Amino acid sequence: MRPNAPGDWDRRKLLFAGAAATAASGLGAGRAYAAANAKGPPGSVLYDVPEDSTKVMGRGVHEDGGYGTRSQFETEVRVKADNPSDVTSWTFTPLASTIGNLTPSGLHFERHHGGIPVIDPARHELFLHGLVDVPKKFALADLKSLPSITRKYFIECSGNTLSEWSKPKGTSVQFTHGLLSTSEWTGVPFATLARAVGLKETSAWVLAEGGDAAVMTRSIPIEKMLSDALIVYGQNGEALRPEQGYPLRLVLPGYEGNTQIKWLRRLQVSDRPFMTREETSAYTDLMKDGRAKLYTLAMDAKSVITFPSGEMMLPKPGHYMIQGFAWTGRGRVQAVDISLDKGKTWLPARIDNVPEPMCTVRFSFPWHWDGGPVVLQSRCIDETGYVQPTRDQLIPLRGENAIYHYNAIQSWAIAADGSVKNVHV
Amino acid sequence: MRPNAPGDWDRRKLLFAGAAATAASGLGAGRAYAAANAKGPPGSVLYDVPEDSTKVMGRGVHEDGGYGTRSQFETEVRVKADNPSDVTSWTFTPLASTIGNLTPSGLHFERHHGGIPVIDPARHELFLHGLVDVPKKFALADLKSLPSITRKYFIECSGNTLSEWSKPKGTSVQFTHGLLSTSEWTGVPFATLARAVGLKETSAWVLAEGGDAAVMTRSIPIEKMLSDALIVYGQNGEALRPEQGYPLRLVLPGYEGNTQIKWLRRLQVSDRPFMTREETSAYTDLMKDGRAKLYTLAMDAKSVITFPSGEMMLPKPGHYMIQGFAWTGRGRVQAVDISLDKGKTWLPARIDNVPEPMCTVRFSFPWHWDGGPVVLQSRCIDETGYVQPTRDQLIPLRGENAIYHYNAIQSWAIAADGSVKNVHV
Repeated sequence: MRPNAPGDWDRRKLLFAGAAATAASGLGAGRAYAAANAKGPPGSVLYDVPEDSTKVMGRGVHEDGGYGTRSQFETEVRVKADNPSDVTSWTFTPLASTIGNLTPSGLHFERHHGGIPVIDPARHELFLHGLVDVPKKFALADLKSLPSITRKYFIECSGNTLSEWSKPKGTSVQFTHGLLSTSEWTGVPFATLARAVGLKETSAWVLAEGGDAAVMTRSIPIEKMLSDALIVYGQNGEALRPEQGYPLRLVLPGYEGNTQIKWLRRLQVSDRPFMTREETSAYTDLMKDGRAKLYTLAMDAKSVITFPSGEMMLPKPGHYMIQGFAWTGRGRVQAVDISLDKGKTWLPARIDNVPEPMCTVRFSFPWHWDGGPVVLQSRCIDETGYVQPTRDQLIPLRGENAIYHYNAIQSWAIAADGSVKNVHV
Repeated sequence: MRPNAPGDWDRRKLLFAGAAATAASGLGAGRAYAAANAKGPPGSVLYDVPEDSTKVMGRGVHEDGGYGTRSQFETEVRVKADNPSDVTSWTFTPLASTIGNLTPSGLHFERHHGGIPVIDPARHELFLHGLVDVPKKFALADLKSLPSITRKYFIECSGNTLSEWSKPKGTSVQFTHGLLSTSEWTGVPFATLARAVGLKETSAWVLAEGGDAAVMTRSIPIEKMLSDALIVYGQNGEALRPEQGYPLRLVLPGYEGNTQIKWLRRLQVSDRPFMTREETSAYTDLMKDGRAKLYTLAMDAKSVITFPSGEMMLPKPGHYMIQGFAWTGRGRVQAVDISLDKGKTWLPARIDNVPEPMCTVRFSFPWHWDGGPVVLQSRCIDETGYVQPTRDQLIPLRGENAIYHYNAIQSWAIAADGSVKNVHV
């Protein structure tokens, strides 16, 4: 691969290496130093940091084997839940450190019920059967040869913010709201497959089944499946990540994450819901009167301030840019409001990206902190006119027994010393 | 992190491990096998592939240390150019294997002139000076506290497709067009910084300088800087990757990649261009008459078919979905056409995503291959009305001396045996 004077090049490479070694030993102009926060991701190479990066030759292309990694200074990771099992567990996205609107695939939150399976894409098939004219198996190559759609959607676990039903338990925004991530998804509309097999007139629900050890199954209304459900094989420009269902996932824009079946292998059309374990014993909403609501599928409008947020410390009074995310499972975010007086008055935040359906938006709000105690709150208004509720509005309706679908306004209290804490007001 | 009966959990984990071992030894229901194409990225863990993934417990969360990686079956990488030096070299994005519209950050093409520097973000500053009222240094934290913009833009090296000026040299689309990538970028408009320092009335050009060993410098017209230039710190939801300029890069939507200075450390406002090395000796277009055009900055409309493309083999006659990318440095892609008869007639392709300014679009075109020899071509029409030229239109205008800004229509010849080859027609 290096036909031009390789011998000469080898000598030059040695010269470069020598310059770098001089720099690292502190003898040259490019004195290296150990950066305090350069820990690097697990297993990563730690490069010396030169005093002046223009005086030391950088590393060459392809030292990473052709698939790049983060800077050694970027060390935020998903953090796992405090669970006895790692195979039926979850990890939280570090929302306060993501930039822009996408979640890097390596930081997309996880929720598994039987661990992450290893599936060979060359052998994987999707079986579509039930109330159809001609049942069909689709190999991955079959799906990839059909017209595809690429869209940005958030996925939120319906258990996101479950720590907050009774007391302010989540210490940081990673733990209160980190079961939320946004990706660019690529796949085939279910409607395309439905045309290929022909739906019977009595079709009303579809069972989606995963190929993991939990054989996760959920029932989805046929209207949703036909309107915008995607059989997804792509995420952020490449194949789905293993934790997100490699090689195939059902994406249901705006629906609770659990219904968006990963490692998808089977779709069965029926005239009624299947009442599977995960939609009867779990993923239902226990109400005050002891009854449980089934099939609360679309996620309600919600928002959270990511800066400043729990466990942070504002160094001193002055100007800050409040930042956060807003989202809704019912179309586009219409507006985001900020309150600095515990909800008495609300001021409009700036929305930083053009709102797309069932996609997060970034918001920001320039703010001057005078050094006194203050509570920061945000609320999301979606295009249906729905306004994200306060705790005082949500709890009387829902009680405190529920696990899922908590979407009350989040409050962060700034103390006079600048520390930020999760509070319920 | 596992307060609930850790002893009990440890026992269960052993049981899982036992089940997996049984599976791997071929004794259990979940018989494992070695998948032919599971090579995995360099240094990655190779998991056994069970016969039935529902019969074996999957791996737990966080085994990757909290930052996920690709499936072991996904092995496409950037490939480096055939250069004697790895520090002034480039790598090509595998365009035929990316999915959707984004390029995964790990596969974004590279072009370095002095290697990839290691820069501590906590010490990095951007100095803005020259014809301004008040010169200013901006720390990274200063920039992050300003209102940000998040947009998807392609970046194309002006040397992309340089192999094609005289003969069809690129064997695959990775080598002919792989100096093209698309990301979601987040940063601060230059216009915001300009307001902070106050531009003098005579301001006409801005020098941008990088902090690499090449101290890369380019001159940019002030109109471009004020209209849509971004000082970028985010890429695809996280910090810029080291190869893309960590911690700071100038993004100039639609301009040749070389001007979008990486490791950005200085911006100097002037009343004239600086005539730097990289805009006089290099990155100019040598014309037929021996004169060189300077400052051909916006990339012209272009497109390429990625499937089928060079080095591929169609297994048999039948239905295929032609796929590819189109882009323009002058606004939005208006349309993409396909020709199956060497340009005599053109048919409209389907555009798979909503065109955004200075962003790639995916196109597709359902096609039946009858088994005979055929040439596949695509052309891009942008919103200015410009039509991507044929070679016969481009070469008389530009000659064959040039290196940069080749944007003629690409032709792939399908032979009767299904093999695909780069040809000039």
